Amino acid sequence: MTFSQLIVNLWHSPLLATTNEAENAPIVLAGVLLSLVVIYLASKIGGELSKMADLPPVLGELIGGVVVGASALHLVVFPDGGAGASDSMIMTILEFINDLSPEAVTSIFQSQSEIISVLAELGVIILLFEIGLESDLKELTKVGYQAIIVACVGVAVPFMAGTAGLILLFHAPVIPSIFAGAALTATSIGITSKVLSELGQLKSREGQIIVGAAVIDDILGIIVLAVVASLAKTGEVDIFNVIYLIVSATVFLIGSILLGKYFNQSFVALANKLQTRGNLIIPAFIFAFFMAFLGNAIHLEAILGAFAAGLVLDETDKRKELDEQVKPVADILVPVFFVTVGAKVDLGVLNPLVPENRPGLVIATFLIVVAIIGKIVTGWSVFGQPGINRLAVGVGMIPRGEVGLVFAGIGAASGTLDKPLQAAIIIMVILTTFLAPPCLRFAFKQSPGEKESLEKANLIG
Amino acid sequence: MTFSQLIVNLWHSPLLATTNEAENAPIVLAGVLLSLVVIYLASKIGGELSKMADLPPVLGELIGGVVVGASALHLVVFPDGGAGASDSMIMTILEFINDLSPEAVTSIFQSQSEIISVLAELGVIILLFEIGLESDLKELTKVGYQAIIVACVGVAVPFMAGTAGLILLFHAPVIPSIFAGAALTATSIGITSKVLSELGQLKSREGQIIVGAAVIDDILGIIVLAVVASLAKTGEVDIFNVIYLIVSATVFLIGSILLGKYFNQSFVALANKLQTRGNLIIPAFIFAFFMAFLGNAIHLEAILGAFAAGLVLDETDKRKELDEQVKPVADILVPVFFVTVGAKVDLGVLNPLVPENRPGLVIATFLIVVAIIGKIVTGWSVFGQPGINRLAVGVGMIPRGEVGLVFAGIGAASGTLDKPLQAAIIIMVILTTFLAPPCLRFAFKQSPGEKESLEKANLIG
Repeated sequence: MTFSQLIVNLWHSPLLATTNEAENAPIVLAGVLLSLVVIYLASKIGGELSKMADLPPVLGELIGGVVVGASALHLVVFPDGGAGASDSMIMTILEFINDLSPEAVTSIFQSQSEIISVLAELGVIILLFEIGLESDLKELTKVGYQAIIVACVGVAVPFMAGTAGLILLFHAPVIPSIFAGAALTATSIGITSKVLSELGQLKSREGQIIVGAAVIDDILGIIVLAVVASLAKTGEVDIFNVIYLIVSATVFLIGSILLGKYFNQSFVALANKLQTRGNLIIPAFIFAFFMAFLGNAIHLEAILGAFAAGLVLDETDKRKELDEQVKPVADILVPVFFVTVGAKVDLGVLNPLVPENRPGLVIATFLIVVAIIGKIVTGWSVFGQPGINRLAVGVGMIPRGEVGLVFAGIGAASGTLDKPLQAAIIIMVILTTFLAPPCLRFAFKQSPGEKESLEKANLIG
Repeated sequence: MTFSQLIVNLWHSPLLATTNEAENAPIVLAGVLLSLVVIYLASKIGGELSKMADLPPVLGELIGGVVVGASALHLVVFPDGGAGASDSMIMTILEFINDLSPEAVTSIFQSQSEIISVLAELGVIILLFEIGLESDLKELTKVGYQAIIVACVGVAVPFMAGTAGLILLFHAPVIPSIFAGAALTATSIGITSKVLSELGQLKSREGQIIVGAAVIDDILGIIVLAVVASLAKTGEVDIFNVIYLIVSATVFLIGSILLGKYFNQSFVALANKLQTRGNLIIPAFIFAFFMAFLGNAIHLEAILGAFAAGLVLDETDKRKELDEQVKPVADILVPVFFVTVGAKVDLGVLNPLVPENRPGLVIATFLIVVAIIGKIVTGWSVFGQPGINRLAVGVGMIPRGEVGLVFAGIGAASGTLDKPLQAAIIIMVILTTFLAPPCLRFAFKQSPGEKESLEKANLIG
């Protein structure tokens, strides 16, 4: 309502003081609109340049985020990154237009950042829903055992190598070492699956193993975090909570897929019966958002619920139509996620000219080597899949993304991690995230499978 | 991040107290997801039932909102409606799941409500963008004079009749009477254009006159509010501000359409050049959101900017493709707006058994009669359009929607309106909003144009 905005200017009566929130609402909306314009520009310019350089577009979106974010232009910044309203260029623009009080500026910055963050969360929820829709449940269950092994190896190897190395090589205390080792475990399913989709490899055997393993990895990551967090706090492991998480995750994923087989039919019947606009997409989103809520409510991840919902609806004969309709929604929400991930990164920690960064950079080099090798070896744990591109499977597990940042943030807030170790984890996350897309592309170029199909295509064409 | 949610449960360390906002983030997300599920259910069930009863679906969405909102189920309630966190059923569910402190509950409720409100605003912005895309600029300029006259008559008649009636019949003081008269002026473009679109009448001559007049009405509404607000505050009218609003609105609308003629070509050329996903919809949304921001920044309405953006892009040969892609986005965001409008209404003020409601109900009856007749007469101000459905034009201008509620809210906050007059305005808004969709449908059934085309269809069929 620009009406109330008008009133702010016309009317500074103390009687209106109680409606402070409502007064700020149009300015919050202006901030959100401007942030979205910046985010879309960054994602499109970054994505297109990346594509021209023959790299995956999502890498460009991440870098676009870095450019507009905390590292450079300061257009899209967030309070949880330590930024205040005065660090935000968008807030400066809004202040210039609206003549705001300092309290109003702080409150508008908070609200706007929170809204963009939730839009980013909705973006990754819709991305995982879409990945679920594009995944093939039968294919996925066929490679289920491989995915479980890849996930477990990919958690165990970096964790043990990282922890042992920090203790033995860097003489770090045990609990911080365990925490840092744990930060090496989780794979960012968002980045990996987006790159796979862009490469057209989502439905390949390798792609399905990676997606399956990344989903399991996400669950393992939650469990590892629960373990190390209780270890750091009390020196003991809360066995009850660990068992709860393992059981609830298993029941949730398997249960939803089994139930889905029955739900499928009623979903299609319902969509066919509805007469008003959105007859297909609204029921689908009700299901996806409800499953995401459920995943969140039982203390797993919202994205797991959305992925399960996508898998279930993939089995219906409305799949194609639904896919078509989800695409534009994903197109406008998913970039908010990737640009936000990039924007929250502060490349300042990479500067070796700042003396405080140096200890972190040395540890970071070690962590990055462990992070990359620890995941690449998982490709060789795949069995019974002759001719599979083992390098691609391993490389696909490399990006740590936002999950690693959560470890770093919690470790720092709890006082477990000192500054250099925290910085090292952040650097490891940045580099694995940015390296993974081009590496994955390179790995798939080595694929015997792709060569074959290219040759076939040439024969036909 | 459900990671941090987990940590909330595992770890109540005072060291974490500074990351309060971040801790609550996953619960805010859960609240938003659950709210969206409820909103979608309400909109679909309401819309389908309405369709079955041969009424416009948007009426059902509004009523669905009333059912889940402040009047009945209390699932979707807002702090600006006077509700606290304890009035929200969704907050009760979240409290049950998460074991929250009272401060956390208040802060989560605030955040969640703010996010749903902004999603609703984005919904009406996208609705107006879509209406702009579906409108025909040539058609609209052809009926431009008629639209201006309809808008001016539709502002002048209810304003004068309402103010005079309140002073003469109800012996109300002058300034509150002027304020209440002003609340009768603005047409809700969202509701009217949605109903027109549902009836397939958006591109008819009547439809284009109504949409054009509703847009001008929105601008006139802003100006009237500026006038009465400064009158109520200082007893004088701020002429400078009124002139500023008239000039800026005219320059903005005409300027964007003229500029758009050149922008058009580059837009299509750009969309054709882009290689990554969202090559059409992202540039379109950058344009629409930027125009919405601009409309908001110069103290007009964001929806005016979005409408102008839609009108401009309507002239490109990408129109159809863009329309296809905007549809699913509109399908998931527009219902948030309509359900929210319904949810914010408190039908309690309509209960004649509550003695305090009675004076308001009497005045309301008068205001409703003026509100309806004052707009219906505008149909007879249309000239030079032989055979036009004058009743439909007048009826199309009836719904007051959210704009009237802003008047009531500001009047109450400033102390200008007493309780009965404020309640009367709210009742007037509710009834005109809910009556308009079925009346508009009825009015178009009387249309000679529609009868003709029905007969033709029968001949062909």
